[in-house]
Amino acid sequence: MTRSNNSDGLMSAADFEAAFHAVGDIYYYDKHPFHVMLTGGHLNRQQLQAWALNRYCFQNAVARKDALLISRMQDSELRREWSLRLLDHDGFGEDIGGIGRWMILTDALGLDRDYVRSMAGALPATIFAVEAYIAFTAGHSLVPVIASSLTELMSPKLHRDRLAGMLEGYDFLDSAALTYFKRRLTHAPRDASFALDFVKRTVTTRQQQDACIEAFRFKCQMLWAQLDALQFAYVDGHIPPGAFRPGGEAAISIRRP
Amino acid sequence: MTRSNNSDGLMSAADFEAAFHAVGDIYYYDKHPFHVMLTGGHLNRQQLQAWALNRYCFQNAVARKDALLISRMQDSELRREWSLRLLDHDGFGEDIGGIGRWMILTDALGLDRDYVRSMAGALPATIFAVEAYIAFTAGHSLVPVIASSLTELMSPKLHRDRLAGMLEGYDFLDSAALTYFKRRLTHAPRDASFALDFVKRTVTTRQQQDACIEAFRFKCQMLWAQLDALQFAYVDGHIPPGAFRPGGEAAISIRRP
Repeated sequence: MTRSNNSDGLMSAADFEAAFHAVGDIYYYDKHPFHVMLTGGHLNRQQLQAWALNRYCFQNAVARKDALLISRMQDSELRREWSLRLLDHDGFGEDIGGIGRWMILTDALGLDRDYVRSMAGALPATIFAVEAYIAFTAGHSLVPVIASSLTELMSPKLHRDRLAGMLEGYDFLDSAALTYFKRRLTHAPRDASFALDFVKRTVTTRQQQDACIEAFRFKCQMLWAQLDALQFAYVDGHIPPGAFRPGGEAAISIRRP
Repeated sequence: MTRSNNSDGLMSAADFEAAFHAVGDIYYYDKHPFHVMLTGGHLNRQQLQAWALNRYCFQNAVARKDALLISRMQDSELRREWSLRLLDHDGFGEDIGGIGRWMILTDALGLDRDYVRSMAGALPATIFAVEAYIAFTAGHSLVPVIASSLTELMSPKLHRDRLAGMLEGYDFLDSAALTYFKRRLTHAPRDASFALDFVKRTVTTRQQQDACIEAFRFKCQMLWAQLDALQFAYVDGHIPPGAFRPGGEAAISIRRP
């Protein structure tokens, strides 16, 4: 990656964008072994259950993160644009939203909706990771937080590969169960394009550019950590006390928050 | 007001609702002298300008407050319901939203939109009051924060009276300029009804009920304080340094946040 020779080291727009991809090439979870197993059809149904119920926590936190971000926007136009993400998560009118579509998947995997929503069986590491994302959003300035959402830049290919891989690999999952991923194929590029344009036209110093790249790396690491925890618990078999035990759902009392 | 004799002193639903009205009768701003002057047609155009540009800060903060509140909701259904308020503030599709409608009023009053949006001419007391509402939302549990929104219970009559009074009292404002208030006539009761039902069915202890009533009182005081500041500055004539000076807008440099 080349950098411009501006006195303050400001990267050109193209170099700035390339820097996100350079970080993504290393840190984005498309190369994580758990993801590779998932996409390759190598997980069993119970491991998919564990993945789906932990990933619910992330989906739910993303909606909260977007609302928290909106709460920090003084510009009504920007809030209005970002509110579309909230509607995508939680639904609007006839649309059941991304979380509703995720529930179709957890239904198909035989998980109880109340159990999923309670997050009682989630890995503590999952909760810590997603709450770190909430805390990051509260504690950093607007532009880096928006830059952290740019993992969507990487995700269309991942969604496409995962959708194809899961349809091929798991005969207990059909196209209807995976409707969440189909919708993301169109929404993720729209979201990423808006966020990238905003970040590019808003940053004015190299320091801000670096903060954006750092925020993006943090987001990648936060996603990666969730897959590490799933692999350790449900592939290597070290399930921590209190977390979801495949086949033993009914025995676990549901603690409502 | 009678109270039930439950061992923990829990008020009946009717008494609980009545308690909001009892606080509102004392603390709600419908009796504030500045509001009475406004509704009675007794302010001049410059005082209306000061009111409209300060009130913009509140309108904008309410959208941020609602987003912050949504960020603290774990329940997707509840977020989905509350997101309607965000759309009401910032608009959606063809709808320009409440803030857009407020700009129609500030246009009619001859204020520059960029100056209004910059909040550069707002009274510091206005900013302190609305940011106290944001801080209250961040620092209190969900149900009292929702209860703080119940000032909408009091507002339909106020909006109706203000709309009629302003149409009658100010010949430089027509029905189109006051479209904001017309919309609130239908939305405020819908919002208040949802929030009241939620609060009533969620509180289970007298302590929570009291926290809701306290939150409602805080909200009333926060609204009242804004009118005190307007009256002191623009009726009594003690305009603090840096705040909007009628007729002198152009001389004030716009500081963007």
